[in-house]
Amino acid sequence: MNLEPQLRIDLNSDVGESFGPWKMGADADVMRSITSANVACGFHAGDPGVMRATVRLAREAGVSVGAHPGFPDLPGFGRREMKMSTKDVEDMVLYQIGALAAIALAEGVRLTHVKAHGALYNMAVRDRALADSIARAVKTFDRSLILFALPASELLLAGERAGLQIASEGFADRAYDADGSLAPRSDPGSVIEDPAEVVRRSLKMVQEGRVVARNGTELRFHVDTLCTHGDTPGAGELTRLLLEGLRHEGVSVAPLAAIPS
Amino acid sequence: MNLEPQLRIDLNSDVGESFGPWKMGADADVMRSITSANVACGFHAGDPGVMRATVRLAREAGVSVGAHPGFPDLPGFGRREMKMSTKDVEDMVLYQIGALAAIALAEGVRLTHVKAHGALYNMAVRDRALADSIARAVKTFDRSLILFALPASELLLAGERAGLQIASEGFADRAYDADGSLAPRSDPGSVIEDPAEVVRRSLKMVQEGRVVARNGTELRFHVDTLCTHGDTPGAGELTRLLLEGLRHEGVSVAPLAAIPS
Amino acid sequence: MNLEPQLRIDLNSDVGESFGPWKMGADADVMRSITSANVACGFHAGDPGVMRATVRLAREAGVSVGAHPGFPDLPGFGRREMKMSTKDVEDMVLYQIGALAAIALAEGVRLTHVKAHGALYNMAVRDRALADSIARAVKTFDRSLILFALPASELLLAGERAGLQIASEGFADRAYDADGSLAPRSDPGSVIEDPAEVVRRSLKMVQEGRVVARNGTELRFHVDTLCTHGDTPGAGELTRLLLEGLRHEGVSVAPLAAIPS
Amino acid sequence: MNLEPQLRIDLNSDVGESFGPWKMGADADVMRSITSANVACGFHAGDPGVMRATVRLAREAGVSVGAHPGFPDLPGFGRREMKMSTKDVEDMVLYQIGALAAIALAEGVRLTHVKAHGALYNMAVRDRALADSIARAVKTFDRSLILFALPASELLLAGERAGLQIASEGFADRAYDADGSLAPRSDPGSVIEDPAEVVRRSLKMVQEGRVVARNGTELRFHVDTLCTHGDTPGAGELTRLLLEGLRHEGVSVAPLAAIPS
Repeated sequence: MNLEPQLRIDLNSDVGESFGPWKMGADADVMRSITSANVACGFHAGDPGVMRATVRLAREAGVSVGAHPGFPDLPGFGRREMKMSTKDVEDMVLYQIGALAAIALAEGVRLTHVKAHGALYNMAVRDRALADSIARAVKTFDRSLILFALPASELLLAGERAGLQIASEGFADRAYDADGSLAPRSDPGSVIEDPAEVVRRSLKMVQEGRVVARNGTELRFHVDTLCTHGDTPGAGELTRLLLEGLRHEGVSVAPLAAIPS
Repeated sequence: MNLEPQLRIDLNSDVGESFGPWKMGADADVMRSITSANVACGFHAGDPGVMRATVRLAREAGVSVGAHPGFPDLPGFGRREMKMSTKDVEDMVLYQIGALAAIALAEGVRLTHVKAHGALYNMAVRDRALADSIARAVKTFDRSLILFALPASELLLAGERAGLQIASEGFADRAYDADGSLAPRSDPGSVIEDPAEVVRRSLKMVQEGRVVARNGTELRFHVDTLCTHGDTPGAGELTRLLLEGLRHEGVSVAPLAAIPS
Repeated sequence: MNLEPQLRIDLNSDVGESFGPWKMGADADVMRSITSANVACGFHAGDPGVMRATVRLAREAGVSVGAHPGFPDLPGFGRREMKMSTKDVEDMVLYQIGALAAIALAEGVRLTHVKAHGALYNMAVRDRALADSIARAVKTFDRSLILFALPASELLLAGERAGLQIASEGFADRAYDADGSLAPRSDPGSVIEDPAEVVRRSLKMVQEGRVVARNGTELRFHVDTLCTHGDTPGAGELTRLLLEGLRHEGVSVAPLAAIPS
Repeated sequence: MNLEPQLRIDLNSDVGESFGPWKMGADADVMRSITSANVACGFHAGDPGVMRATVRLAREAGVSVGAHPGFPDLPGFGRREMKMSTKDVEDMVLYQIGALAAIALAEGVRLTHVKAHGALYNMAVRDRALADSIARAVKTFDRSLILFALPASELLLAGERAGLQIASEGFADRAYDADGSLAPRSDPGSVIEDPAEVVRRSLKMVQEGRVVARNGTELRFHVDTLCTHGDTPGAGELTRLLLEGLRHEGVSVAPLAAIPS
């Protein structure tokens, strides 16, 4: 891991979060400004038809497609912690990656990465056994998939132990706590909505490898990819401004891997 | 299609139909006597953990593993007709095949075939567009997968149009109507439970390519694979007697394809 | 049933169709202009929290609350036909009515009516046994509940056989076929979006008991309640214009029953 | 609460835990020996048809019927902790009680009690806010319902605060920890299967108000109702032996409340 400033970054966003008749996000807009799309796999959001339409949008926009597996909890959108066994998590993650990979085949697309969603991601940041079960599922399916993970998290370490490629992830629009974890969504101010502030924080992460936590502590970590959220109003505009802000400062915005043919 | 008697047959059964805490079937027993296992994929039965345990059982028994996709209807076990668009069916079948294929990878197993379940199978027997959407999903995922289908059905024709290998399927323990379709499960006598009768019918199908429908009409068709049901009490014993009965008459019981490594 | 023109009408709309994190409709807006709210019960849309918030909105707006039971099919929004047994339909409708009634208690509200949703409604228009099972569930729960039904439908007849109060329902924004059924949603033009046209058709139904079907046939039926759809953009505005249009012509817009205390 | 020995006890069991095509438990057998039936409500087990059949069995056996609400987690059988908001828990419990009460109406049965299931019960033992939300739901629906709760638990205290009648519950076939909580199911020996031991422990609880925890500590508490589990093989026989053992010692086995007409 490299703590030096850098001039290249991947932009990722969670997409494909509609379900049945219900729409969420502005995927077509967001796709214009990101380089990696994390596609929900039907457990916390998404359904086979939504998944296919989302992969098609990504392909048309030249965006890399990854799986975004989550807990089996549609009404809670995968944001509620569930105490699942590590064995169940491993099988469930495999199931979701495989389902998306098959749908992607129909659009001539191969997956490039995996990013756990919501409570599954946050629990795997702290829980080594859970993190290992996610890494194991990814490795079983395709060891060339890149695992997205919070810097210095158990999830990142699990990916390294499994011999996977890791993308260290910064959150452009989320507040951090002093231990490097994300401030809970339920806290006021935990989701940053001011585009200028989002761009400023992103540049600091990319150029300096630094971000200031809520209590003023300065955190240092390297980021390979920046996440912005696609399910908020104005997500398309925010992502566009972030892309422009980064480019204006000479940062190259590019996917982590060449898109496999 | 070949209407001559034959001396080789595959035996298939629907397995992996437990769900969460609920057990169904006698999979370990049934696996000892079949050559192809159709594994439920979580929509009408099965869950990621059940799917994995079932694939492991099949691998240990040297049984070929196929996907058994069904309608998204757990309480109805996929046996209730649903009016889904053909597009939704195609995406849903792809999703389920992909999910099982990923789980199977964890056990070092590759899929060999696909058999639609319950109402999806029965509707595809009659509905050309639906049948085409299933065949399209199979072909997209892996054109070397064998599609199981009722003789002379729209599903069989769809598989041929798609250029897929087809296994013409006979039902050892189900009554037929004069048009070659299966008598509805709700009719008394539609599921044959007497093992001697099951063996007798099976031999007639395999050796002579004939079966007698409920109204006395003699149907003629070639069968590549015979289905017995694994969710009834005594399924293990019935399947064992069928295997013995076939072998006793000199019929070779063998999978349709070599199990891919 | 009275085929004479009338000067009093109930306005109903399907509401509470959000689910988990997904929003649908403009319930708060629509509630300002209707007199009866049909609240989804968690099977095709809605969840316990959405149901409660919707009942509260209705109470605050002085709108009567009814149950809107549907098929167990969230991804298909209850609009896909499912072949369920009449026994299963009866138990499922009872379950949904009871669940909503309990939630409504927490807001001090009692239910006044029941309207089946989507494919369940449309199938019950034609299928006597299905219609009877819905009427039986309503009668079991509370024989003072009003059953909403298409004029001259099996559902209306089933309600009469069960001794229930019936509200004969007209659809302000849907095209009719010559047999009095609604044109399928998949047909272009089946949902009428021009507010002036919606008001014109509604007045004709209320004042003259007449509506012109797609093929030009004039249908005659009495209407007690008019439905507008709450899940389309501009639903709040459309409903407001309809309310004003009716009042401007001297039609009294009022709920079917006094709201029980 | 009375810590003196007593000579009267209610016997309760969780029933109605089948789902769709999957059977669980030996409800008809168990019903012969219990006085209170806790019926699953469709979220962790049960479906409308299973609920109705179970209420009918209870009515025929003269057994009191209560609601057994759980987390929305069929594959995990409601035994996995979920972090739901207290508001969501309240609405979800109301929903489930109401659904069962409506189904029960069709069998002419009124509910007498509520017992939370699995992880919901265990979390409410420790979590005051969660316990209050359950008690609030029960009180809203019908303040004459009896709330079942572990002695000295937050759930029992919440019921008291809400002014509900409480049934202090002992577990005949589960090991206790020294703090009065149940040993986790995942621990070997946590479920007691020897009928003689189950009877012995039950008598000690009923006659002396005492039970010995796993570490040898003697716990003292009053019990109004004893739970045996209906989902284990031999549950019918175990419950019968318990009933006989209690009666042989002169303990009166009777429901907590007269069954409302």
